[in-house]
Amino acid sequence: MNHSTSEPETENTESLRYLSKVEASAIETELVRDYRFGQQQLIEMWGYACAIAITKAFPLKSFSKKQPTILVVCGPHQSGSVGLVCARHLRIFEYEPTIYYPKRSSHSVHQDITVQCEKMDIPFLSYLPTEVQLINDAYNLVIEAMLGQDSDANDIKEPYSSILVTLKQVKIPIASVDVPLGWDAEEASKDGISPDVLISLMAPKKCATNFSGKHFLAGRFLPYDIQKKYELNLPEFPDTECLIEL
Amino acid sequence: MNHSTSEPETENTESLRYLSKVEASAIETELVRDYRFGQQQLIEMWGYACAIAITKAFPLKSFSKKQPTILVVCGPHQSGSVGLVCARHLRIFEYEPTIYYPKRSSHSVHQDITVQCEKMDIPFLSYLPTEVQLINDAYNLVIEAMLGQDSDANDIKEPYSSILVTLKQVKIPIASVDVPLGWDAEEASKDGISPDVLISLMAPKKCATNFSGKHFLAGRFLPYDIQKKYELNLPEFPDTECLIEL
Repeated sequence: MNHSTSEPETENTESLRYLSKVEASAIETELVRDYRFGQQQLIEMWGYACAIAITKAFPLKSFSKKQPTILVVCGPHQSGSVGLVCARHLRIFEYEPTIYYPKRSSHSVHQDITVQCEKMDIPFLSYLPTEVQLINDAYNLVIEAMLGQDSDANDIKEPYSSILVTLKQVKIPIASVDVPLGWDAEEASKDGISPDVLISLMAPKKCATNFSGKHFLAGRFLPYDIQKKYELNLPEFPDTECLIEL
Repeated sequence: MNHSTSEPETENTESLRYLSKVEASAIETELVRDYRFGQQQLIEMWGYACAIAITKAFPLKSFSKKQPTILVVCGPHQSGSVGLVCARHLRIFEYEPTIYYPKRSSHSVHQDITVQCEKMDIPFLSYLPTEVQLINDAYNLVIEAMLGQDSDANDIKEPYSSILVTLKQVKIPIASVDVPLGWDAEEASKDGISPDVLISLMAPKKCATNFSGKHFLAGRFLPYDIQKKYELNLPEFPDTECLIEL
């Protein structure tokens, strides 16, 4: 982190904070209740930053397949909508996302974001192939925006448990948003998926502490008072970048 | 525009479209009604892109004053909120915006965006100094996000007419959002301000046709079908940039 080499004695207090589930949700509540950020506004910023992270980790030209296809697997709540917004921006960046969105939200914010993708002609799969080779052959990458912080390693219900089984067998790279499917927000799990890329929103969660893949922190908009109050010790983002690789 | 040099015979059909007021508002209606983009979502994307435009036109280090102060003058409607979001992101990019927002909106979307700025400790001026030297001395730059497409060269009421008088005398650079104060969306006016930088949202308006300053097109998210339907002939945005200099 910044300054930590020049002032080693303060390293502990200056190291990046990995949030518990309670802390992460307290920050979000504060953003919405006190700062009056709209849910759609937050999802838009996070989804955009996720799309930028994907372009950095997987530039268009890095794909081996002829078409820059990506499968975006979205859950019913906020994480899923971040995945939908991410897909929308990736389409604008000339990737070819396909969305699998098995459980649609009844919340109008999420529905509106879904319509944006549908109207932009992004294809939606009606089911996820159980034959994994079909996924490996059709796509260059899976973006998993399933449950995020709602993920609970001990209680994964259908359809997520089947999706988990499929994604664990996939051979193409996986990028997870915030908390990988099958993990707990506070602890990684070997029974969950093993993403190659993790995109943490706002601040990393405890489960990411020992993550060894490519790790991005996305969403550079947190008010300084919140950063200070929760002692986030965020790294310095370069220039006007909306994310940073940790 | 792209390809125009290599295919001069198709130049006319390929040149960037400058929108009438009616066309611009038709596109916006379609985005909100058919694509279900939220107003807050659009304002967030535009405000962010405006902030990026400012960082490109006026990098932090380019300012002659010791502090990177910017005066952001915001109107009561959508343009003003774009200015507020722009100020919020500029604060995160370590500029020091001060906001003048003489007529506040009673619309909750705009109020929420205002609270975000207030809670982030961005100062709000209670009046605009009529002694122009005070503005020249205190700030490096004015961002004018006053009336946008609601601007009407023939019918500028208070407080905008006084603000116009003041801004016309200002010596520091001015960056206008979408339609400069005192212009009409379809025609530039010598009675209006003469901004150094113009940031067009979505697609440029007719008034920008002969603009000779630095001109940015901000907001790269328009669905391809809309671009085609309105024959916008947008230039190719570089990489993942959310804007382009025209």
